[in-house]
This record gives sequence, structure tokens and C-alpha cells, in this order.
Amino acid sequence: MVDSKKWVLMATAQTPTNIAVIKYWGKRDETLILPVNDSISVTLDPSHLCTTTTVAVSPGFEQDRMWLNGKEISLSGGRFQSCLREIRSRACDVEDKEKGIKIEEKDWEKLHVHIASYNNFPTAAGLASSAAGFACLGNVQVYLFFSLSFIIFVFWGCYAYILKVHWWKIDDDFFSLAKLMNLKENPSQLSAIARQGSGSACRSLFGGFVKWIMGKDENGSDSLAVQLVEEEHWNELVIIIAVVSARQKETSSTSGMRESVETSLLLQHRAKEIVPKRIVKMEEAIKNRDFSSFAQLTCADSNQFHAVCLDTSPPIFYMNDTSHRIISYVEKWNCSEGSPQVAYTFDAGPNAVLIARDRQVAAQLLRRLLFFFPPNSDTDLNSYVLGDKSILHDAGIGGSKDVEALQCPPEITNVPAQKYTGEINNFICTKPGRGPVLLSDESKALLNLETGLPK
Amino acid sequence: MVDSKKWVLMATAQTPTNIAVIKYWGKRDETLILPVNDSISVTLDPSHLCTTTTVAVSPGFEQDRMWLNGKEISLSGGRFQSCLREIRSRACDVEDKEKGIKIEEKDWEKLHVHIASYNNFPTAAGLASSAAGFACLGNVQVYLFFSLSFIIFVFWGCYAYILKVHWWKIDDDFFSLAKLMNLKENPSQLSAIARQGSGSACRSLFGGFVKWIMGKDENGSDSLAVQLVEEEHWNELVIIIAVVSARQKETSSTSGMRESVETSLLLQHRAKEIVPKRIVKMEEAIKNRDFSSFAQLTCADSNQFHAVCLDTSPPIFYMNDTSHRIISYVEKWNCSEGSPQVAYTFDAGPNAVLIARDRQVAAQLLRRLLFFFPPNSDTDLNSYVLGDKSILHDAGIGGSKDVEALQCPPEITNVPAQKYTGEINNFICTKPGRGPVLLSDESKALLNLETGLPK
Repeated sequence: MVDSKKWVLMATAQTPTNIAVIKYWGKRDETLILPVNDSISVTLDPSHLCTTTTVAVSPGFEQDRMWLNGKEISLSGGRFQSCLREIRSRACDVEDKEKGIKIEEKDWEKLHVHIASYNNFPTAAGLASSAAGFACLGNVQVYLFFSLSFIIFVFWGCYAYILKVHWWKIDDDFFSLAKLMNLKENPSQLSAIARQGSGSACRSLFGGFVKWIMGKDENGSDSLAVQLVEEEHWNELVIIIAVVSARQKETSSTSGMRESVETSLLLQHRAKEIVPKRIVKMEEAIKNRDFSSFAQLTCADSNQFHAVCLDTSPPIFYMNDTSHRIISYVEKWNCSEGSPQVAYTFDAGPNAVLIARDRQVAAQLLRRLLFFFPPNSDTDLNSYVLGDKSILHDAGIGGSKDVEALQCPPEITNVPAQKYTGEINNFICTKPGRGPVLLSDESKALLNLETGLPK
Repeated sequence: MVDSKKWVLMATAQTPTNIAVIKYWGKRDETLILPVNDSISVTLDPSHLCTTTTVAVSPGFEQDRMWLNGKEISLSGGRFQSCLREIRSRACDVEDKEKGIKIEEKDWEKLHVHIASYNNFPTAAGLASSAAGFACLGNVQVYLFFSLSFIIFVFWGCYAYILKVHWWKIDDDFFSLAKLMNLKENPSQLSAIARQGSGSACRSLFGGFVKWIMGKDENGSDSLAVQLVEEEHWNELVIIIAVVSARQKETSSTSGMRESVETSLLLQHRAKEIVPKRIVKMEEAIKNRDFSSFAQLTCADSNQFHAVCLDTSPPIFYMNDTSHRIISYVEKWNCSEGSPQVAYTFDAGPNAVLIARDRQVAAQLLRRLLFFFPPNSDTDLNSYVLGDKSILHDAGIGGSKDVEALQCPPEITNVPAQKYTGEINNFICTKPGRGPVLLSDESKALLNLETGLPK
């Protein structure tokens, strides 16, 4: 296989997360991960929310291993294994002449990999470090931690396959994988592969607004993601995520959507009759930057997805009382303004993703959120509002005293309004962002180039 | 009109409440209160949950007045007024020879009425005495307070109309109105009139299990309630209501269902495609006392009703985190037993109505409920578990110490299980019960026979 005794080859990529505005809920094929309807998402700015993943291969590795945020996790799950199989089968000859390393196609079967994945907002967002803790946080984080790691994994295989070059020699610091792949292959076709790692994560292959087309083929070849518009197209939008302090363990989205497909009598009606029309309207709204339509469709579709969860047997509850309160406040405010200022959407967890029309609205939104959900007295504002802190500045909030001085919003008529200290873990201010990039700077790798173990 | 100067004529009736097991949600005619689908309910035992209403008429009354639980309320609402009009137009000649009183048809227009309504579990159930407080308690109580009072009101008119006798002279202490009316008119036809006061309350015209047929006629003449089986048919069932300590004001069911009809894309599919099949299955399950099917249908339909509420714009949330917890515990228990032991259903509020297969299961259920939701330290067990206290005895619970000694149910694997003290206001143990009755005992009237004012 190779001449040298011990060598380690590595690749590191930064992958964004996305939040669906028209939801994916239900598979028509469990193995190939083919959805029952199209979905549309917005990719979130990776500077605030992303996963960095390093994948390494070496003849010295005795088994496949994976670390999430520095903690080793089991790779015995079915999806991990099938993903590993998929990548191995796609791998091609790889040669690093400088190092004098050559891996032939047939060698891949015998080679083990090490994967390390790291989230850029773990401690600050109050995420627990146990797997149960992760599972508590809904789709936004769940696939950040668990699924996006597969993407870079699949990328890695695809990349070697398509470009037949030594990808670890690319030296642009942030080189767009998608763009690179465009040279030889449509990145949407790559998304069809990425899809098999985690359905909704395939939408993270692009920045801006992305549509995952459900496709018709039985083999899933036409179930892929396409970019609708780049992130610059609608750059006024500001996104604030309210990370809700959840206590209870939730149903995973994988098992949840399977149960919905099996038991909900409303799911098929939604997938066949309602979503197709919404997709057309949503594409139109995004194209025209029509915030009113966008917000109306986003909120209605989030609510309908949760309605289908509730219609499942046994019912699935992802939203809690805090989620409900946030919806009520947003609805009340939108109503008082005469047209929507903020859209809300919730994935498989209680966290709210709030999309504000523009910066000015976002600042007003943040003031409202901090009024209703002030931080605990022992929580520093700096660790309570994360991400793009300039929104905090725009809101005129420099410290705890400014939060205490916030007035009740005018649309709230039943004063004194109740406050819910402690119900929110933190807020993350962000915006639509770009797709995944490959990091060539070795200092950014999460694994040690000598040992292949976490740094 | 009459010879004497001042006289007061009165009638008092006791009306039960009912809880739907296949839900009514959505009107196809707002004025006539015609539903978009059939619904099925179980009438609750009036010894534990009922409304007593006295209606009085006198030439001395200067205006229509109404008292709910001793507190006067405004009669300016549209439904009150239309109900009053309806009754006046149906009133006939009434003569009380003993008192020398004769009211002719045309006189009714000029006569004012006094109505007093009283609920048999107000203080004990922790119900606030303000109207806002009532509105917080969901359908069970809401129509107990507001709507059932109309029924006796309508009865009163119908009764005089049909029997043409002086109803206040009936001297059987508990004389069934329905039975009485059967003499001349089908009670289902009366329900079509009662329906116009409050839709779901029309099902309270019978005991046992009752179906409200949606009907087809534009004028609503065939939208009426029919008894499916008498309460004795399935007398093993035990019902435990968990009154949830709610803080927030809720959407009234009247406006909620209007908004659902206008905005939910799932409601029509439910009404047209799903409910008709469920009604057939539910009737079958009730006929055969097939608890497994009954429970499966009841739970699924409750969840689907709340799913439609969530699919409404803006979304309606009637259940809260406590409601969700109760569902989760019941689902877990049912799952561990292999077949359903308890069915749950929720109306337009967070309160859980739990239907146990039999007394033995009810005792086990009560033990579980008290384990998860123990009373506050300052709450007496006697005021925490209301209604049929023999269930408490069956559960082997005599006092607070027995509650403290309760062991975690075996189906709960994540010990120590969390307890939620204070989340439940109280439990009411009851069972399926009989229909409405007329009370001839004047001592039970809520209005003074001399003054026509509350006693």
C-alpha cells in the first residue's frame, strides 16, 4: 500500500448549519433518506454557527474513531457504519508525491479513519457536554453535532473521487468546496450523496437560500439540493436564535419523523397537497424579498410541522411553554405593526429561530426578548447574547442596567407584563451565510498530524 | 297579562357536562352553530360536575339579569341576546291557576328574566371567581359556566311550549327532563335548539355516550344530538380530571374554532376525510366496550384537534408543559402494559381528562398522578382529590404521608423521576353519568321566590 511506515493524511472543513423555512418531515425511503416533500432553508453564517471537522486516515489507525467537541463517541450506529461504507466505496487512488504516499482504491477498505468535529458555540451556548445534552437541543444543534460531520466525511470521499487531486494540498485559506466541485461536477449532485448522511444537512452545501428537491427516482439520484439565491441576495435579514433552557429529553428527529409517517393521518395531506403550493409561494417570496409573504409562509409551515408531530402516535412535543410564549409575543407584535416584522420557525426542539426584516427590527426584537427573558442575575450579558454583538449595540444595550431599564413593549396591554428569567439559556445573533469551505491551514485541523489524535 | 301585582315564576334544573372523545372543532355556519363534523362525547356524572340553574320570570323585573356563581354578569353579548330572543319567540301561554297567574304568548316579549347559575365545584377546584378566571379553565368549565345555563333556559321555553303545563308544579325531586319531553317530542329535536346556545353543550342533553350528528340541512334542523348508549352500558369506566394550574389567558373556543376554519389547511381534511371514519370506529368501540380501540381513537382525536389548533394562524396553544407531561406518562404506562389502560383527552384548555379502563386501573392511575404531581405542602389531600373519593381509598391513600411514600412507577426508567409539585390544582374523580334533570324542590332554587334575586 505504502512505502513509509506511519503517515497521516488529513482534511479539515468548516460546514454551516441551516434552518428550514419550509420543513422537511417524513421520509418516503428510510435507507436512501428520500423526503416526502421539497423543503427550503436558509444557511446560517458560519462565523456564528458552524462545525469544523477534520478527517484523517493512516495505516497506523487500528479502528474508526470519532470525537465530538473533544469527547470520543461510539461509531457503532447504523448510519455511521453505512456512511463509512459509502465513503470507502467511493474512494479512489490518492497520491501524495511529496510524502511518498500512495493509496490505491482497494486499500481504502483496510484503512481506518479518525474524525474530530467541533462546534463553534458549545460552552457559550450552554450546551451540555453529554450526548443526552446534545439531543436536548433540537435540530439546529443536533445535526450540527451529529450529522454535518458526515458531510465533510462524504465530501472528502467525493472530493478525492471527482478531482482526483490531493485535496490536502489546497492552500487557499477558505476555499469554497462547492465552487471547486463546480469545475467538474454539479454540486447539487454531491448533495444527493451528502443527503444520505443526514437529510436536511444536504441543504448546508450552499449558502443563502437552498431548496432540497424531493425528486422522483426510486434510487434517489434526483433528490438533491439547489441554491435558490446567494446570501447577498437578501442581506437585510437578521436572525436571532433563542436557545431555550430545556430539561426534558426529546424524540430524535429520525425516529420522530418515522413515527409521523407511520401514524399521522395529516402528514400525507400536508406533503402532497399543502407543501407543493407553499414551495412555489416561498420561492417567489425569496426571489422578490417579499418579507410579509416570507414571514407568513415560514410561521405557518413551522406550526404545521409541529401540528403533524402532535398528530403522531404517541404525540411528539418539540415546543414547550417558552416556545409558545415567544410565538405569542411575535404574533402580537406583528399584529400591532400591521405587517410582519419577524418570522419564527422551530425545528425538532424548543429553540426559536427568529428572522427579522432588517437590522432595525432586529434591534427592537432583541430589546423585546431581553425584556421578557432577562438573564439570570449571575449571567453576564456578554455570554447571554452571542454571535453578532453589534445588534446589541444597535438595541442600545451595553450592560445589565440597560436590560433592567427596558420598558414593556407598547403592544402588551396587560401590564405588568410577566417576565421569564431563566427560561432562555442565551441568544445568538446571526444572519444568512455562505456554504462550506475547506480549511487548508493545518493549524486549524482538530487532529494532530503526527498522531491522528485530537490536539 | 296578570291580575296580581307582583309574582315570580321559577324553574330549576341540574345539567351535566360532557367531554368529547371525538372532537367538535369548526362550524360550517356561525349563526346556527352547525359543525363541520360529527362528534361523540361522554356525559360526566352530575354529582361531581354539574351546573344548577334557576330561571325566573316576573312582571316586576325591570331588565334581564344573570348571576354566575353569585356574581352578576353582563348579558350584552350577542349569544345571550339571540338566545333570549329565541326563547321568547318559542314561549307559549302559561297558566298557574293556583297562583292565579296567566302569561299569554304575546306577554313574553315584555317580560324580563332572571337567571342564576351555580357550579358544584367552584372553590374546591380552585376556580377564580372572575370571568377571566373562568375563561382560563378550558371547555370543561367554560361551557359549564357560560353555556349550559342556556340549555335550561331553552329547556324552559321548550318545556312550556311542548307540554303546555305549569312546569314549576312538577314535584318529583329529580325528574328527567329528557324523559318528560319524550312524551311529546323527540329529545334529539330539542338538542337542535339547545345547540344554538352552545354547540357542544347540546350533547349534554343525554347521559352516557352521545353523538352530535352534524346534519346536512342548511337550516340546521338535522344537526342534533342522539344517545349512543346509556351510562350503565359501560359502567366500569372511571374518569379522573386533572385541573392544571394555568396562568395564561386562553383563546376562547368560539373565536379559536372560527380562526381554525379560516386559516388551518388541515381542518377540512380532518373534518371530511378523517373524522367520518373515526366516528364509525368509535361507535363500534363504545358498543363493544372495546377499551383498546376506544383509547386509541380518543387519544388520537384529542391530539389531532390540538394539531389543528397549532395549524391555525396565529397558532392556538391549549395544552401546556403540564398537559404534555401527563400525556407522556400515560403513553409510557400504556406502552409498558402492552395495551391501553388509560385514555386521555384535552378540550380547549390545559386540563387533562383521563378515562381509566376500570376502578383498579383508576386507583393505579391516581397513585401515579399523585406521585408526579403531589399537592403543595399547605394543600389538604381532601381538597386536592375531589369527587368520588372512594378511588383514593382504593389507591390505598389516606393522607399526605401515603402520598409521600408513593414509589416511582416501574415504567419510569430515568430515576430519580422529577416531581412537579404545584402544577396541578386538583383532581376530580368521576364517571360517566346521566342527562339533565329538573329540580322541583324549591329549596334547591338559586333565586328567591319572593324577590327573584339570588338567595
